[in-house]
Amino acid sequence: MKSLPLAKVYQLIEPGPVVLLTTAHKGRANVMTMSWHTMLEFEPPLIACVVSSANHSFAALRATGECVIAIPARKLAAKVVKIGNTSGRDGDKFRAVRLEPVAAEQVAPPLIAECFANLECKVTDTRMVQKYNLFVLEVVKAWIDPAQKRPKIIHHHGYGRFAVDGPMIKFKSRMR
Amino acid sequence: MKSLPLAKVYQLIEPGPVVLLTTAHKGRANVMTMSWHTMLEFEPPLIACVVSSANHSFAALRATGECVIAIPARKLAAKVVKIGNTSGRDGDKFRAVRLEPVAAEQVAPPLIAECFANLECKVTDTRMVQKYNLFVLEVVKAWIDPAQKRPKIIHHHGYGRFAVDGPMIKFKSRMR
Repeated sequence: MKSLPLAKVYQLIEPGPVVLLTTAHKGRANVMTMSWHTMLEFEPPLIACVVSSANHSFAALRATGECVIAIPARKLAAKVVKIGNTSGRDGDKFRAVRLEPVAAEQVAPPLIAECFANLECKVTDTRMVQKYNLFVLEVVKAWIDPAQKRPKIIHHHGYGRFAVDGPMIKFKSRMR
Repeated sequence: MKSLPLAKVYQLIEPGPVVLLTTAHKGRANVMTMSWHTMLEFEPPLIACVVSSANHSFAALRATGECVIAIPARKLAAKVVKIGNTSGRDGDKFRAVRLEPVAAEQVAPPLIAECFANLECKVTDTRMVQKYNLFVLEVVKAWIDPAQKRPKIIHHHGYGRFAVDGPMIKFKSRMR
């Protein structure tokens, strides 16, 4: 995996991909699916995301303040759904869905080898956790897999339905 | 336009569409583009969104506590970009881009006739505005245009590049 400049992270999150979120707690890594997230700031990149207190990952994120956001392309969709349908309470999800955890550089939770992008994150603000389960994350290191050219991301529409990225269109724009 | 049950609103926002946000202040309506938003709660639907204090719409949203989130399909992409490239300071954007404002039911800002979905919103929490320009909105009324079948939404990748929805895929899922 290749390092990605932090100033480009927003281009990965802004389009609304379903992502995988990894945590590590008490010697065990876990992974969940997540679609409720938004950029908050370009640089350093801040992301706000909702991790429900009903999720097994919630306690790990709360306790450790670290996670990795891994972005899967279309070919991983079936695994993404399987991860969403099971809980870390029931065993090792990485093994169950056959995804390869890889050591991160600045945080304890693992990267996911098969994902085309991995963002190492630290929780920087927990004031909205109690009311909204909303965490503010700062991306401290970003990785991209140069072998995955033009990955198609998937967008959740509820109940296992996803829109896959279709054609790209381009306009002259002053918008960043 | 047809009323949409509030419990289904998350299916519109979760996939990460570029949206238009309308406001009304001092007798004048305005519209901006927005990609930094996330669902916060299913029902009543809560949305968190970033409206930069550099945007002309910021003051209106702050002062009135009301907005409409309108969701454009692919055919409106060029207008979405034009809206993003201009400021409400410079004149009536609805007229400039030829979009039709339509009276909403529960808020002062207008719906946009050409959009396939329109969400009337009230600001319910401004505690994150000062630090992050992040507003919490409650959707109080939702509309869908039944004439637009299977609209393709657009996802911003930065600098006027958008991914258009491609094929839909479906898996058995317990995820809502």
